[in-house]
Amino acid sequence: MRVMGVDPGLTRCGIALVESGNGRQVTALDVDVVRTPSDMDLAERLLAVYTAACHWLDVHQPDVVAIERVFAQNQVSTAMGTAQAGGVIALAAGQRNIPVRFHTPSEVKAAVTGSGRADKAQVTTMVTRILGMQTKPRPADAADALALAICHCWRGPMIERMAAAQCKADEMARIHKQRVAAARAGRTTGDEGRSA
Amino acid sequence: MRVMGVDPGLTRCGIALVESGNGRQVTALDVDVVRTPSDMDLAERLLAVYTAACHWLDVHQPDVVAIERVFAQNQVSTAMGTAQAGGVIALAAGQRNIPVRFHTPSEVKAAVTGSGRADKAQVTTMVTRILGMQTKPRPADAADALALAICHCWRGPMIERMAAAQCKADEMARIHKQRVAAARAGRTTGDEGRSA
Repeated sequence: MRVMGVDPGLTRCGIALVESGNGRQVTALDVDVVRTPSDMDLAERLLAVYTAACHWLDVHQPDVVAIERVFAQNQVSTAMGTAQAGGVIALAAGQRNIPVRFHTPSEVKAAVTGSGRADKAQVTTMVTRILGMQTKPRPADAADALALAICHCWRGPMIERMAAAQCKADEMARIHKQRVAAARAGRTTGDEGRSA
Repeated sequence: MRVMGVDPGLTRCGIALVESGNGRQVTALDVDVVRTPSDMDLAERLLAVYTAACHWLDVHQPDVVAIERVFAQNQVSTAMGTAQAGGVIALAAGQRNIPVRFHTPSEVKAAVTGSGRADKAQVTTMVTRILGMQTKPRPADAADALALAICHCWRGPMIERMAAAQCKADEMARIHKQRVAAARAGRTTGDEGRSA
């Protein structure tokens, strides 16, 4: 499975491509950081991020795009730009029918370091080790994008299986409910038949 | 000037087209609300909003797109989706070289009702009156999109003039600073000349 990991942002947007193999084997295929100057028009910044994402999607054709889920609580001043950058990347994937999945920062940290509260340095160190890289990926946004892709390689299949199981359980519950309702309706009709 | 006003959102996204005439004269040309179901994939919802925005931009060719500025503080649960919807609309405008401007909710309320703290009903009433509409625009998102477009029709030209004036003042200040620095450097060189 080829996963494109995205640490969204306007000033710096980390994009990475990781391929999963047997078990927990993962290989980094590419990583880059897209930058746009903060004095640029918002629409132009979004266009630059979108164009870069389109290029990556067309060149690498990932099976899934994993984006960091942004929370409004963190860093109010940049959260909106981060959400907008993530939005145009999700759009680019949607236009190509590539599924988009979101992971929270703590899920990503827990996946690569074992702790949901690891700091940036720990994430970078573990990403370097997991991918067997000669040098640490820089800046932190590049490491975060790689971590996100690794997180999806490891957690994604399980999440999909759980979602499928949940879907099946919902369907079974629906059928069961229908049967109960039908049985009740039958009994009610039967009662009415008797009382008439 | 033709202004496309946007009240961004994923569940309901208000889009309106208003044309400004002499003085404060404004005419509503079109208004609509784009809806996407909340159980739809985020990428698909963004694609639906983006496609609708592209259609509006291509059909109506507005001079400027005015989008409500979202703050992370308000309604944390929906703020991210709102920012993402605004982001893909700004992207659609950017792809067509149409300038995008942002107004805060209180600026919009102040422009159409005279009070930055007016409620939704007051905004709807004033929008209906200003545009001389027979019936109140429904839902509130449609009225908000119209209010946003009116706000830009009235405030936009002034904001552009102020920005141009600020730009000119910054340029003058830069030149003045250069001259002072040059004069000081000249004096220092002169002093050195004397002391040598």
